[in-house]
Amino acid sequence: MTHRLLAAVAAFALALPVAAKDAPAAAPSPGEIVDAAPAADWVAIPASDLLVMDLAPDVAGKARRIVIQLMPAPFSQGWIGNIRKLAAARWWDGTSINRVQDNYVVQWGDATEKKALPDGLVTVPESEYLSQRQRGRTTWLPSANGAYAPHHGVLAGWPVAWTADAMWPVHCYAMVGVGRNLSPDTGSGAELYTVIGHAPRHLDRNIALVGRVISGIEHLSSLPRGTGGLGFYETQAERVPIVSIRLATQLPQADQPRFEYLSTESGSFAKYADARANRRDPFFITPAGGADICNIPVPVRAVRAK
Amino acid sequence: MTHRLLAAVAAFALALPVAAKDAPAAAPSPGEIVDAAPAADWVAIPASDLLVMDLAPDVAGKARRIVIQLMPAPFSQGWIGNIRKLAAARWWDGTSINRVQDNYVVQWGDATEKKALPDGLVTVPESEYLSQRQRGRTTWLPSANGAYAPHHGVLAGWPVAWTADAMWPVHCYAMVGVGRNLSPDTGSGAELYTVIGHAPRHLDRNIALVGRVISGIEHLSSLPRGTGGLGFYETQAERVPIVSIRLATQLPQADQPRFEYLSTESGSFAKYADARANRRDPFFITPAGGADICNIPVPVRAVRAK
Repeated sequence: MTHRLLAAVAAFALALPVAAKDAPAAAPSPGEIVDAAPAADWVAIPASDLLVMDLAPDVAGKARRIVIQLMPAPFSQGWIGNIRKLAAARWWDGTSINRVQDNYVVQWGDATEKKALPDGLVTVPESEYLSQRQRGRTTWLPSANGAYAPHHGVLAGWPVAWTADAMWPVHCYAMVGVGRNLSPDTGSGAELYTVIGHAPRHLDRNIALVGRVISGIEHLSSLPRGTGGLGFYETQAERVPIVSIRLATQLPQADQPRFEYLSTESGSFAKYADARANRRDPFFITPAGGADICNIPVPVRAVRAK
Repeated sequence: MTHRLLAAVAAFALALPVAAKDAPAAAPSPGEIVDAAPAADWVAIPASDLLVMDLAPDVAGKARRIVIQLMPAPFSQGWIGNIRKLAAARWWDGTSINRVQDNYVVQWGDATEKKALPDGLVTVPESEYLSQRQRGRTTWLPSANGAYAPHHGVLAGWPVAWTADAMWPVHCYAMVGVGRNLSPDTGSGAELYTVIGHAPRHLDRNIALVGRVISGIEHLSSLPRGTGGLGFYETQAERVPIVSIRLATQLPQADQPRFEYLSTESGSFAKYADARANRRDPFFITPAGGADICNIPVPVRAVRAK
């Protein structure tokens, strides 16, 4: 039995450059295409769009930092404004992860439900769940058709779906949204969740998406599942303390994370998306001929200090 | 802030019956439809199709049992025959979980790659990745169209896709498959994986699916992610010991788990699938009008001792 058998499900790692060392020369994998993208195809993410969440260290004493990228206009800007205010007010410091439901979401906020919100938050109307269609700025991915919308693609680095008139962001793995009550204009942005399972696309247009986890999601996705209803933790001891959530711009310059994404208008992205839909690297026998929008995750990478 | 705001992402829990206690009377949720299904709509899963995996207890000393349902004919029967022989030979006892890759797979088997396989395993040809279309036995789910195949539905409780001629099982969350080398007829069944993220549908028809985790997946999905390439654990200390994997029929009668699934030919399943595609329960504003096949998981439940 060779190591390659153990590495078994290896040759198709999600967005990971895989070196099939002794394979015959063949079409590049999606990861290899991303690795080969020229510097000019990468777009810096502004520090002002990054939310930095520090959990209490794990049992081994290791730091747990999660970085969330907030969505740009036109989506969900009312809630995102609230989130900026909550971070500026250090409202989340001392709150906790309260819910981990398998194949669904991790949710955080104030477990006591009594912490006063800062002044100046706005109530956001249901109409902000979607926007007008962004004609001319969107890369259509014809292979990513699906049950949830007639069209899917990416807009400035974000997965979206649209009809003739309306466009909305979609609930892929790691996307971050705003918990709400039954009424659609509830949900201030103080209670947030991220997706840790198969994309719950039925939430699209029913709840506000505000961003995505771009680093450290494993600190959330590997947490013990809650044993209460809907995966809520039942005791304070189970809740994971949030030390702080800050905008990156609130941190000292040297501590600010830096990330960039592969321009979804670049040729590299077009090649990558095609390869995700039609795997031709050595492991594959039968290319799928398509890929759903959540199986074409937009590549994001950390910028290393020089 | 009410508890309902905290419960935020609550009203649409995956296949969980949600009591929207003070909501107006409304259409039932998928979970409520499943709860209301008559006993006659549930089909017992034979003990001979259940694989019982016991991991070493967790750090708190709690037992970790995972139950896998093996697929019936016509799919993957060569590998499933091998798996039955491996379980009968207690081949997995003392092996380990060796790989946990975020949003992808958990994989287990012999980390040393040197453990001799039992006699009598067969080499299975590539042709067994799919079967002839099973006409007349399949429930088509027209709302579950998608990028990966022209048709999706369920066959005797299993998610499948098909063309005019061929049919194959699909890589949804918790499905179990056979690791292999580059050549498609490698992979004995000794190295297995399960999906713990967004459905990697590009693996369909490229690797053999043999079953699904029907209980205890949280013991796998919440494991620490491996820090080696492709999520492999880098040290023996990180690997999670497998105490045993047995067919349920190898266990004493009293210790045999019992499960049943909602007949996918029943009226209850039809209602459930429609509700998954068109959420009309109180939380929802905009029903999706469709759901991908992996968002219509076939309900499975434990049979409680009487």
